[in-house]
Amino acid sequence: MKAEIIAVGTELLLGDILNTNAQFLAQELASLGIEVYYQTVVGDNPQRLEDTIFHAFSRADLIITTGGLGPTEDDLTKETAAKYFGEKLVPDKKALEQIEHFFRRIGRTMTENNIKQAMVPEHNGVVLYNENGTAPGIIIEKNGKMIVMLPGPPKETVPMFLQQVKPYLAQKQEVTFVSRILRVAGVGESAMETLVKDLIDAQTNPTIAPYAKDGEAILRVTAKAKNEAEANRLIDPVAEALKERLGIAVYAEGETDLESVVAELLLQKKATLAVAESCTGGMIASRLVEFPGISRVLLEGCVTYSNEAKMRRLGVKAETLEKYGAVSPETAKEMAEGMARTSGADIALATTGIAGPDGGTAEKPVGLVYIALTHKGQTKVHEYRYAGKRNKIRERAAYQALDWLRKALIYEE
Amino acid sequence: MKAEIIAVGTELLLGDILNTNAQFLAQELASLGIEVYYQTVVGDNPQRLEDTIFHAFSRADLIITTGGLGPTEDDLTKETAAKYFGEKLVPDKKALEQIEHFFRRIGRTMTENNIKQAMVPEHNGVVLYNENGTAPGIIIEKNGKMIVMLPGPPKETVPMFLQQVKPYLAQKQEVTFVSRILRVAGVGESAMETLVKDLIDAQTNPTIAPYAKDGEAILRVTAKAKNEAEANRLIDPVAEALKERLGIAVYAEGETDLESVVAELLLQKKATLAVAESCTGGMIASRLVEFPGISRVLLEGCVTYSNEAKMRRLGVKAETLEKYGAVSPETAKEMAEGMARTSGADIALATTGIAGPDGGTAEKPVGLVYIALTHKGQTKVHEYRYAGKRNKIRERAAYQALDWLRKALIYEE
Repeated sequence: MKAEIIAVGTELLLGDILNTNAQFLAQELASLGIEVYYQTVVGDNPQRLEDTIFHAFSRADLIITTGGLGPTEDDLTKETAAKYFGEKLVPDKKALEQIEHFFRRIGRTMTENNIKQAMVPEHNGVVLYNENGTAPGIIIEKNGKMIVMLPGPPKETVPMFLQQVKPYLAQKQEVTFVSRILRVAGVGESAMETLVKDLIDAQTNPTIAPYAKDGEAILRVTAKAKNEAEANRLIDPVAEALKERLGIAVYAEGETDLESVVAELLLQKKATLAVAESCTGGMIASRLVEFPGISRVLLEGCVTYSNEAKMRRLGVKAETLEKYGAVSPETAKEMAEGMARTSGADIALATTGIAGPDGGTAEKPVGLVYIALTHKGQTKVHEYRYAGKRNKIRERAAYQALDWLRKALIYEE
Repeated sequence: MKAEIIAVGTELLLGDILNTNAQFLAQELASLGIEVYYQTVVGDNPQRLEDTIFHAFSRADLIITTGGLGPTEDDLTKETAAKYFGEKLVPDKKALEQIEHFFRRIGRTMTENNIKQAMVPEHNGVVLYNENGTAPGIIIEKNGKMIVMLPGPPKETVPMFLQQVKPYLAQKQEVTFVSRILRVAGVGESAMETLVKDLIDAQTNPTIAPYAKDGEAILRVTAKAKNEAEANRLIDPVAEALKERLGIAVYAEGETDLESVVAELLLQKKATLAVAESCTGGMIASRLVEFPGISRVLLEGCVTYSNEAKMRRLGVKAETLEKYGAVSPETAKEMAEGMARTSGADIALATTGIAGPDGGTAEKPVGLVYIALTHKGQTKVHEYRYAGKRNKIRERAAYQALDWLRKALIYEE
C-alpha cells in the first residue's frame, strides 16, 4: 500500500506552526509497513486542495490528511474528498450529539457552523468519533483507494489515529516493516558509509541506510517480513555483521544517546566520576545530569575557566600554566589528576582547548582541544582538532570526551 | 513570486526527523512577502525527486530545497536541478578547498565521495559556501525560474539562508516585510499578551504578533513597506510603546539570547561571576560559556552534585545539610556565599532543587528549586516551583537564574 500524508492549513504554509503530525504519522505508517512516498502541505484554498488530493490519488492508494475539518467555510478537506469519491455528505446523529455535548462541557453554546463538522459521507464512510475535540475524523474507502481524514490539533489527531485508524490499517497489511537503528560514535557519516559500503550494496532485505543525525552517524536496518519476529530474524545477522565491521564505534541500538549509554555504564560498573571542564564549560556535566539517577555516580564537576581556578580547585601548577599554557597536554593532565585527587572519584575527565573565535595562534589554532582521562591512577591525554564555530567545537569536544569515557569503561582501560 | 519548499530525505518520510527547516523557511519567505503555496517532502529516490521538482516548477517561480546535497550516492538534489535547467555540473575549486580544509581541520582524510559535494553548475549558478559543514548550497536562476538548494542540517541551513539567501531574495522584491523581535523574560506568553492586547488590536501596519519560542515569550513587530528604512520608521514607535509597557521584562531586541545579554552586561560592568550548580548541573555555566570572551568575567563554576562536594568545594555546613536538606534556602544561601568566598568573584549564583523524576516528597515536590544570588556581600534566595520533565525543570531554573542575574546587574542590586 503506497501512502501520502497531506497536511491542510495556511498556518503551516506561513510557518506559524510546526508540522509534528507529519512526523508522527510517518513513524506510525512505517511501523505498519505502509510506504509513504510524499508528504505535502497545502493551504486552505479550494482549488489547490483539490489539485493536491486528486494528484496524490493518481500515485497513491492511501491518503492521510490532517486539518481542514473545522467549522469555518475554508475548512474543505471533507468536501474535497467527497467530491473525489463522488459521495454525498449527510449529517451524522451521533457526531452532532458529541459536538453538542462537547460545547455543553466547556460551557459554550454551539454555533450553527459547527453542524458542518457533523456531516459525513452517505456511503463508503467510517466515522472516527472525536474524544478530544469537535471535528470527527472520516475514512472513505472505494475502488481500492482510501482516504483517512484526521483533525489538525495533535492532541486530537494522535489518539484518534492510535485508537481507531491504526488497528483499521493493520488488519489490511500482510507485510510489516521493522527498523533497527545502530548509533555510531567517533566515525563520520561518509567514513562510516565507506567502511560498510559493500554490506549496504549486498543487502536488499533488510536494507541498510546510513545517515547523520545531530552530528552523529546512524545506520538504519529495515526488514520487510510477514511479521515482526521474522523481520527481526532477518535483521539480526545484518546488524551483527555491521557491529563486527564497525566494532566499538557502534555505541548503541535504538532510541538513546551517548550520555545515557555512558551514564548506564557508570552505574552498572559502580564507577564514580568527576569532570573538570575548561573549554566545554560545564557541557559534559550538564549532559550527564540529564540522566535521572546520575547523582549516584557523578560526584561533581568544576568549570575551571580561569587559570586561578585551575590552580586553586585542581592544584594545577603555576609553572605548568606558564611554561606550557592553559591549553596544553600538561595542563589537561594536571586538571584530570587534580580532579581525581580532590574529588576522590574513580574516574576524572578534563578538557581544555581553544573554542574561539579568538585566542587561536599558528601552533595553537582555534579548535585545538586536549582531553585527559584519569582512571585507576593512570592518566592519558589526547589531542583533537575540530572545525566549526565556538559552540560546535565545544559540542564535539564534549561528545568526544563522553565517547572516550565510554570506551574506557568498556575496555576497563 | 510564488514559491514552494521541498525537503529531500527518506529519513523525513520515515519520521526519523522533524521537518523544522520547512517552518523556518516558511516564516522567512513570509517575512519577505514571498507566497508559499506548497511544502513537499520527498525521499532520496531519483524518479520521485525529479517528478517533484519538475511538477513544482510547473506552478512556482521559486523552489527552495533542503537536503540531498550530501556525499552519498542517493544525494541527488543538485543533479536533478541541473537536469531541469539543462546545466552541467563542474568541480568548484573553492568549494573543494573548503571541504579538504574542513577534513584537515578535523584530522580526518577526505573520502572520494566528498568531491561530489564540490560539484556546481557551470553556468547560471551561485555557490553558497558552507561555514558549518561540507556541502555548499547552490542557487540556479534561468528563464524566470529559480531554485535555491540548501543542506539538510538546520545548523547549516539556517545561517546559510539568513546570511546568503535572504539578502539575495530581498533585492528581488518590490515590497519588503521587516520584522523586529522583542524578547521577554520573566513573563509568560499569555500574561504578556494580556499586558499589550490593546496595542496589538490597535495595530495594522506594523502588526504585533505574540508567540512562545523555546520557553520564552516573544513579540514580533512586522511592517510592510517599500524598503527596509521605511519599514523601520514604522516599527520604531510601536517597539518603543511595547518596551515602555513591558519595562525590564523586555531583555533584548532581535536575534540574541538571555545568556548573551547577561554576558554583555557582566563584561560592560566588569563584574566577575562564579556559579555553583546542583540541579542545573553545569547548564548555567555552559550557556554562559557559549558567549565568546566570557572568560574575562566568568571565573569558574562548580557542579556540586554530591553533599560531600557542597561541603568541600563551597564550605556548606554539614549541619545545614542535615537540618534543612540539600534542597533548602539555607543550603542555597551557603552555596552562593561559599562560591563567592572561594572564587573571589563579585557575584555568585547558586542553584539547588529536585529535578525529578524521583526524589520528590509532599513538602519538597519535584520541581522545587532554590536559587541564591550573592552580590556585594548580600545574599538573596528565591524559591521557584516548576512543572514539566527533568530537563524542562533544569532549563527553567537555569533561565530564571540568568534572568535574575540580568536584573541584578541592571539595578545594581
